[in-house]
Amino acid sequence: MAEKYLTFDPSQTIDASIDALDADKVLVVTDLNVEAKVLPKLEVSRVMREAPRIALPAGEIGKSLDSVVEIWEKLEQIGATRRSVVLNIGGGVVTDMGGFAASAFKRGLRTVNFPTTLLGAVDAASGGKTGINFQGLKNEIGTFHLPSKVILSTMPFETLPQKEILSGYAEMVKTAIISDREFYFNLLDIEDILDEEARMGRAVEKCVMIKDEVVEKDPKETGLRKILNFGHTAGHAFESIAMEKSREISHGKAVAHGMLVALILSNIKLGFPSSEVNRYASFLKNAYGAPLISCEEVSEAILKMGNDKKNNTHGQPLFTLLREIGVPEINVQTGASEITEAMEIYREML
Amino acid sequence: MAEKYLTFDPSQTIDASIDALDADKVLVVTDLNVEAKVLPKLEVSRVMREAPRIALPAGEIGKSLDSVVEIWEKLEQIGATRRSVVLNIGGGVVTDMGGFAASAFKRGLRTVNFPTTLLGAVDAASGGKTGINFQGLKNEIGTFHLPSKVILSTMPFETLPQKEILSGYAEMVKTAIISDREFYFNLLDIEDILDEEARMGRAVEKCVMIKDEVVEKDPKETGLRKILNFGHTAGHAFESIAMEKSREISHGKAVAHGMLVALILSNIKLGFPSSEVNRYASFLKNAYGAPLISCEEVSEAILKMGNDKKNNTHGQPLFTLLREIGVPEINVQTGASEITEAMEIYREML
Repeated sequence: MAEKYLTFDPSQTIDASIDALDADKVLVVTDLNVEAKVLPKLEVSRVMREAPRIALPAGEIGKSLDSVVEIWEKLEQIGATRRSVVLNIGGGVVTDMGGFAASAFKRGLRTVNFPTTLLGAVDAASGGKTGINFQGLKNEIGTFHLPSKVILSTMPFETLPQKEILSGYAEMVKTAIISDREFYFNLLDIEDILDEEARMGRAVEKCVMIKDEVVEKDPKETGLRKILNFGHTAGHAFESIAMEKSREISHGKAVAHGMLVALILSNIKLGFPSSEVNRYASFLKNAYGAPLISCEEVSEAILKMGNDKKNNTHGQPLFTLLREIGVPEINVQTGASEITEAMEIYREML
Repeated sequence: MAEKYLTFDPSQTIDASIDALDADKVLVVTDLNVEAKVLPKLEVSRVMREAPRIALPAGEIGKSLDSVVEIWEKLEQIGATRRSVVLNIGGGVVTDMGGFAASAFKRGLRTVNFPTTLLGAVDAASGGKTGINFQGLKNEIGTFHLPSKVILSTMPFETLPQKEILSGYAEMVKTAIISDREFYFNLLDIEDILDEEARMGRAVEKCVMIKDEVVEKDPKETGLRKILNFGHTAGHAFESIAMEKSREISHGKAVAHGMLVALILSNIKLGFPSSEVNRYASFLKNAYGAPLISCEEVSEAILKMGNDKKNNTHGQPLFTLLREIGVPEINVQTGASEITEAMEIYREML
């Protein structure tokens, strides 16, 4: 498992991490946005001053095979060897893409990830999943390649819009709710945590540790790791309906809402306590607002869940649900009528 | 480690292997040459009749990112999922390239390799190294991805020119000489083995088993696996000089000659017995002919060995040498004067 460093001095930690890897060359991979907003704050770092750098277009559009080829060309140009290291600084797009490029260069260079978004820190940067988009499909091409080190810092989060912070926060709540009752109740106190840098840092670190434990037990996502998909079946459906109708919506917000659907289903299928469904619903309403789909879109959403390629068997979606807070159950087969009922309750509760 | 099947009925073995993997889709990856010469002999196989197929240009020129993109597009087109399998049928180019494409599609599809060249069977098909050429550099982009199954058959070897058989045979002799005295003496009996299909099949299987043992102990080539580079330091130098001067030479022939240089150095550095150097020299002369480089090219070859990116420290080439037959030693640092001496003896002996 990759070593994690929670740091309040990221420049120093970057230098120490690279030194510890005894790299002969370092390539910094980032995007144009991060280059403008975050990199100026890392100028104290010797590595950041000296290492060659490639900055790619920001966002999903840059997460392409063309960008990977540019990284490979840059690695050739600087004379990278098997002892070289790729230092990815950015959100999930950068760490996924830089991770893929590194994993396939000379059959695998080591990587250090410095996530600059909250979602990246608690999700993409640590698990070893790498990927790029291909033919319009997200992460269709990729590998499993664990980073050697991950540098966790709340410093870059200052540059993020509130919407992106909330998106990452939803991922944290998800991690907590499937694994740790006390940590989950702690996270419901969202306003205070977002205000306190030290508390936020510790919460991020805790999330990463929980995720690491899960990933370590199931690195290639054959079973247990599916608990991390909690809230994602409905969440993905919300996300793709919003995209089709050009409504802007963050991944995290979609998952936050998907989690309420999953909790309602957990109540219906596994007797998850109603009081906890209510508690989550009021947290959601307060932090993530009104229902994401209209009444007319409910059947469309249900259809999409049945087509989710990762989680269905013979067109029946498989949900990750909870028996109680911290006690997940994977592959719960769920019929259309139960989902319809849950979607109606979801809309009523918000 | 991948399961290996030595078979005298490859069509039946292909079907059984695919059935055992419970694949939802199968894509056959091959090249135009193999498609014309070998595939017609596999028509009895249900899988070969039914599975979609992609046939790429034969040879190193086809081992490109463009070909990999074509494989990925084909996988999309047939609706491949994580439960699908890529069946690579061809020489090292096909198994390396198809293996790489599979390893990065949806973070890794399973592969079955059916090597159709002797060199592929005893080398590329089993070890899990995948790769394509990039910017003129061999295997610059690739991953480690073990095949789920490897089907070994001497049937396709009938279609190979003698030169290619000899190239693969050199790899077999190398595997034997670093690991197993009895097997090595057995292989020196080259004419009889090439004449007897059953004996040849068993020898191929034995080579793959030996190689598997080595790879299993060192999957990512950090140490022990370097014993498989025996003969390659000088062999690569011979190969690249020949290429530069447009003389045609097979990889195996270059390695066969490189092994004599390595044995002479083994004698100089580690006291390897002279009688065994002589025995190998007469085998080599008989099967692989005259010296590969002229007297004038000796210093050029020595320079190239010092630049070998995989095996040198501060410009001093590191050789894999033998103390005696079956007892290798890796990372033996060797000076220019010793190599010069060995090269002179090499030229005199042949």
